[in-house]
Amino acid sequence: MTAVPFSTLASTLERVLSRAGLRSEEAKLCARIHAESTWDGVASHGVGRIVRFVDYVKRGWIDTDATLSKVQALGPLEVYDGGFGIGVRNAMDATERAMTLASEHGLGLVAVRDTTHWMRGGSYGWHAVERGYAAIMWTNTESCMPAWGASQQSIGNNPLVMAVPSDNGPLVLDMAMSQFSYGKLKTQRLQHRQLPIDGGFDDSGSLTRDPAAIEATRRILPMGYWKGSGLAILLDALAALLSQGKPSHEIDELQRGSGTGACQVFMLFDPTHLGGQDMCQTLVDSITAHLEAATPDESGNTVRWPGKTTYETRRRDKNDHVVEVDDTTWNDILALAE
Amino acid sequence: MTAVPFSTLASTLERVLSRAGLRSEEAKLCARIHAESTWDGVASHGVGRIVRFVDYVKRGWIDTDATLSKVQALGPLEVYDGGFGIGVRNAMDATERAMTLASEHGLGLVAVRDTTHWMRGGSYGWHAVERGYAAIMWTNTESCMPAWGASQQSIGNNPLVMAVPSDNGPLVLDMAMSQFSYGKLKTQRLQHRQLPIDGGFDDSGSLTRDPAAIEATRRILPMGYWKGSGLAILLDALAALLSQGKPSHEIDELQRGSGTGACQVFMLFDPTHLGGQDMCQTLVDSITAHLEAATPDESGNTVRWPGKTTYETRRRDKNDHVVEVDDTTWNDILALAE
Repeated sequence: MTAVPFSTLASTLERVLSRAGLRSEEAKLCARIHAESTWDGVASHGVGRIVRFVDYVKRGWIDTDATLSKVQALGPLEVYDGGFGIGVRNAMDATERAMTLASEHGLGLVAVRDTTHWMRGGSYGWHAVERGYAAIMWTNTESCMPAWGASQQSIGNNPLVMAVPSDNGPLVLDMAMSQFSYGKLKTQRLQHRQLPIDGGFDDSGSLTRDPAAIEATRRILPMGYWKGSGLAILLDALAALLSQGKPSHEIDELQRGSGTGACQVFMLFDPTHLGGQDMCQTLVDSITAHLEAATPDESGNTVRWPGKTTYETRRRDKNDHVVEVDDTTWNDILALAE
Repeated sequence: MTAVPFSTLASTLERVLSRAGLRSEEAKLCARIHAESTWDGVASHGVGRIVRFVDYVKRGWIDTDATLSKVQALGPLEVYDGGFGIGVRNAMDATERAMTLASEHGLGLVAVRDTTHWMRGGSYGWHAVERGYAAIMWTNTESCMPAWGASQQSIGNNPLVMAVPSDNGPLVLDMAMSQFSYGKLKTQRLQHRQLPIDGGFDDSGSLTRDPAAIEATRRILPMGYWKGSGLAILLDALAALLSQGKPSHEIDELQRGSGTGACQVFMLFDPTHLGGQDMCQTLVDSITAHLEAATPDESGNTVRWPGKTTYETRRRDKNDHVVEVDDTTWNDILALAE
């Protein structure tokens, strides 16, 4: 691992993205989002995605000039075409627009079709709660997981983000529908570790904790078995319905890599209209206090809730600290920056 | 098991509910909903809930005269107080109101607080799709599951319903956040069967497939381990925020049984405003065709999607058929009907 000061990480990523052809504003935004994801501990969708993103731009799979164009407006519900633009730019614009609609109506729903990979969905959930909004957001993806009962990759892992604000620590959930990501499988394999629980199927169709066996079959397990499979299918259908865009199996046909052509939904709520910000904060604080007070299990860990660890991480002053980055990843990024 | 003609089941339940003090309209509605759930294979929340419901009415935990009263209207978003009325009546009224709002605005969101158990959430998802609407609905509950990292029941299992219509067979997901229900544990125990996968923790804190061991500790497993725990926490917070009602830990304090004091969210979408009903049907049909074409796994079962089996069941003519009802349950119901 290489210890990289946060400011160096952000400025290096910005240089890479500028060299790839992004305009100054987009290069700055994407560099910040990727650097923050890395800082927050989600390197897989931070530094880990830069080389692939640049490759997609070079292949013409991402149109760096495209921005959201409005298809339809129905009061607080708006539909946009993403024009295969930069996923992070589109997702941030959609979040901002849905926040504006929520400020006006209590809720705002922005559905985007034909966009590209939003990287870490949690970026937009954190963006929302840090500005006092609650959120439900999700994306569909290309098929990367077998549906329950199938041996073949046939559904997306369709990450879902849900968030409720509090100044004392919000609730922010960011989860894909697979029990483990391919990134996690790789990390565990390189460390010669088994997964803590079953994570997919081996080539005989048996559940296994062996990351290499699962990487070989690409039969990752939906979280909750049939439940995560079902939820992934419904998130796909609803995202495609709301945005009038492509479901997973049509994204597959594009053959333009991970996330290209996806549909995304950004549903934002303004607590100001729903009892007030104070009531929302009291609600969240009472839930986390209740969880904190629950008897811990035998693992010796404390009870966790979504966002707890990341909240502490994000509060640390980034200027004083370095981020540990995988050597290969960092060298690849430095090569692109030159 | 006792073979009961469907019409006998419905009329017997109606008699039981009338004797419990429900008005004619509510007795008829609840009898139909409970009978249909039983027909659809969800006896646990159909006939299996009648005795408990009558008990709650007798205890005064459910106010059979209460109906939804409006708290707030923000265009397509409305908040109601359920007045601890009959959960099925409130949920059906909320679904109907959200459908009306969706017809007008494209989406309609009705949030209800201080309601009571809605029984089977899928009832309202099926009601919506059979009228051409897509839906996202959920409820919070009292604490009945340990949060991830806790040994103590500290979160609700907060069932989530998602549905997208097609005349050729809709997608309807109805799932709680626990991997298995207490009803399933009981059924498996009575049949001297182990669960097919881990379903909770035994008294040493180890994951187990033994239903009796889990019933003893009441440490049921969230689906997807930490993932289902996190999703349950966020569904609770969002339901309480949107309805300005009670989160799970405040429902616990009421001490009025299962579901009493819950918050529920009914988000309905009208595809007519979102590309049209034909586009929605084509979307759903293309997803199910894609899944049907996926290579099945080694289990020998076909690939399933949410709603597939229930759709076939619901198409059968109920008048020609009987429903198998557990003997004890049926005798208890007959005793209440006399």
